[in-house]
Amino acid sequence: MPDNGDLTRRQFVRLSAMAGSGLLLTRSMGLFAGTNPAASIKSRGYAAIDTSGTLVPWEFERRPVGDNDILIDIKYASICHSDIHQMKGHWGPQQYPQVPGHEIVGIVAAVGKNVTKFKVGDRAGVGCMVDSCLDCENCEGEEEQYCPQTVFTYGYPEESSPTGISQGGYSTNIVVRDHFAVHIPDHISLQEAAPLLCAGITTYSPLMKFDLEKGDKVGVAGIGGLGHMAIKLAVSKGAEVYAFTTSPGKVKDILAFGAREAIVVDDITKLAPYRGMLDYMICTIPAQYDVAAYAAVVRPFGVYTQVGMPERFELSVNNLGLSISRVNFNASLIGGMKETQDVVNYCADSQILPQIQIIKAEQINEAWESVVNKKARYRYVIDAATF
Amino acid sequence: MPDNGDLTRRQFVRLSAMAGSGLLLTRSMGLFAGTNPAASIKSRGYAAIDTSGTLVPWEFERRPVGDNDILIDIKYASICHSDIHQMKGHWGPQQYPQVPGHEIVGIVAAVGKNVTKFKVGDRAGVGCMVDSCLDCENCEGEEEQYCPQTVFTYGYPEESSPTGISQGGYSTNIVVRDHFAVHIPDHISLQEAAPLLCAGITTYSPLMKFDLEKGDKVGVAGIGGLGHMAIKLAVSKGAEVYAFTTSPGKVKDILAFGAREAIVVDDITKLAPYRGMLDYMICTIPAQYDVAAYAAVVRPFGVYTQVGMPERFELSVNNLGLSISRVNFNASLIGGMKETQDVVNYCADSQILPQIQIIKAEQINEAWESVVNKKARYRYVIDAATF
Repeated sequence: MPDNGDLTRRQFVRLSAMAGSGLLLTRSMGLFAGTNPAASIKSRGYAAIDTSGTLVPWEFERRPVGDNDILIDIKYASICHSDIHQMKGHWGPQQYPQVPGHEIVGIVAAVGKNVTKFKVGDRAGVGCMVDSCLDCENCEGEEEQYCPQTVFTYGYPEESSPTGISQGGYSTNIVVRDHFAVHIPDHISLQEAAPLLCAGITTYSPLMKFDLEKGDKVGVAGIGGLGHMAIKLAVSKGAEVYAFTTSPGKVKDILAFGAREAIVVDDITKLAPYRGMLDYMICTIPAQYDVAAYAAVVRPFGVYTQVGMPERFELSVNNLGLSISRVNFNASLIGGMKETQDVVNYCADSQILPQIQIIKAEQINEAWESVVNKKARYRYVIDAATF
Repeated sequence: MPDNGDLTRRQFVRLSAMAGSGLLLTRSMGLFAGTNPAASIKSRGYAAIDTSGTLVPWEFERRPVGDNDILIDIKYASICHSDIHQMKGHWGPQQYPQVPGHEIVGIVAAVGKNVTKFKVGDRAGVGCMVDSCLDCENCEGEEEQYCPQTVFTYGYPEESSPTGISQGGYSTNIVVRDHFAVHIPDHISLQEAAPLLCAGITTYSPLMKFDLEKGDKVGVAGIGGLGHMAIKLAVSKGAEVYAFTTSPGKVKDILAFGAREAIVVDDITKLAPYRGMLDYMICTIPAQYDVAAYAAVVRPFGVYTQVGMPERFELSVNNLGLSISRVNFNASLIGGMKETQDVVNYCADSQILPQIQIIKAEQINEAWESVVNKKARYRYVIDAATF
């Protein structure tokens, strides 16, 4: 992680000015990239400049479109709780300004000379990573997210980037190696496809690894952006889904998503009647909680997968409680690029769609507060035309 | 957990005096129990009276020998790190005075009228639990340690006990329901059998659940009382054992126990070369440590079992690290009574013996310090004749 956490507001203003100096701002980058592929790409978005959790408009540059790159004219980017955690420094000190966003969809506006996967005009999406070595065991096993050299979509050191770090999707465009973009089929709207790039793949990947069978009892804890997709995906695979939420106001939605039962865990004892009942459980809670108590809802020797990432990525687990439930606790991080394409195709084909609310760029800060306060229903999608 | 943590020294003296008043102290309880089975049993041992971690001699009473009980004249009791954790209040407030000790061996001195499992003169052992409902799914599944009504060997509310809580084995005798005692075969010494009642079963049980096959690469982290037994047990089952210790002074012993390699983890980076290499790992470290870094030594989708119990039973797990290793983390608590008899028989038959140091009662406090300071080699066994 870059350690520039104490970049001052003064430094920010200077950096910001440098990034914008002498560059003509233009909405469509396609023409620009087409005429001069060696030139840096001007971009405009919303960036964090400190740990406050407040984003401000920012103009910056992206690298020129390389031989293996594509330039995507972003149409929509959706808001993930991870954006908020990382910008606030919950996962370690950050370099600012930093543009968050890793649920990105748009139209291909330029392609490098080696690119055959995409052509200009294609609908494309980018998720949580933008590069890896493509050569190690993990990359060859189609789990690029576990490659030691993975560059995640924002805030990761990236030599090719004019800002020195990767910059995310709350912006007008993105330059990305073609391998790390997926096709968005025509039969799903771009705005509904956006949340699949993180919320979709993050829940789909462990559900697929569990080898879910029809009739399996599957628990989902934490019903936000990820959780509501987990319910829909598990239901679509024939599971009997039990959804655990702390928000009584979500019960009606949860049942509409197809869950068998919605359990309001306003007190940890509400979990007791479900002890040992489920075959599998996925937890999206991105904060400290009583892991052993939730895990105990799974049958002995069953599996419980944590996908929500709390502050500092640290979860406290009561080992005695976990021993009593005899549940296997594991964690999962998004999914590989092939599987990301799979989930997008699957959701388009089966019409498994996230429940979204479209917002303008100027509403991002307000939306972030709603995410933190559990008021999102269930994914905010930013209209990139408003950047 | 009983909440009498602030029992004062004055209260202790009064309680202590009450417990001893009017009772004739005698070493052998057999005669006494034989002549008056309805009478309480006088006992003498070492008790904690506060969270200081210092034990003092104490005289107290045990319940009369009930119809399903046996009275064991204790010969040896060994020291487990758990004794120290619990007496110091690391696992929650305690009622004092409390006698620790859950690795207990001796000779049966009296039996209740329904008891057929033992007769007077038998060699018997008691581990971490002394009662349970014997009727629930866990009890019927021979995992009595997970019964909601399990009474652990010391510090648990127990109506039948004159002190209101169970009292452990650092003492001259113990009254226990026959189901919760095991036979100690003649071909193992009592002093070497003692550590099997916790250190042995706690490592044997998860190793057996893992279905260890000859040639499997098994890791053991934390080479103390439990860890050295884990090495010996895994080696005896044909595993290739990798032992991880923070004590360079233990390397020679570890290799003598049969481990393939002893890795001194004086820095967490020492784990890196072993990444993804092992089939299974058992961790006995009874304190906070970098769980995800150790778990990463196991191959993806392999299993890592925590048996060491840290303060408050809480372990902090880095969820991002765990996701990258894709290892299943679980925890295990001792083992059931049938399995406890199995490990004792197995160790006697195969001569898998703990490395012990026999001490007198007056050396207990010093021995506790050595356990905390990782100086034990590898189990202190108290000679009960010195109480």
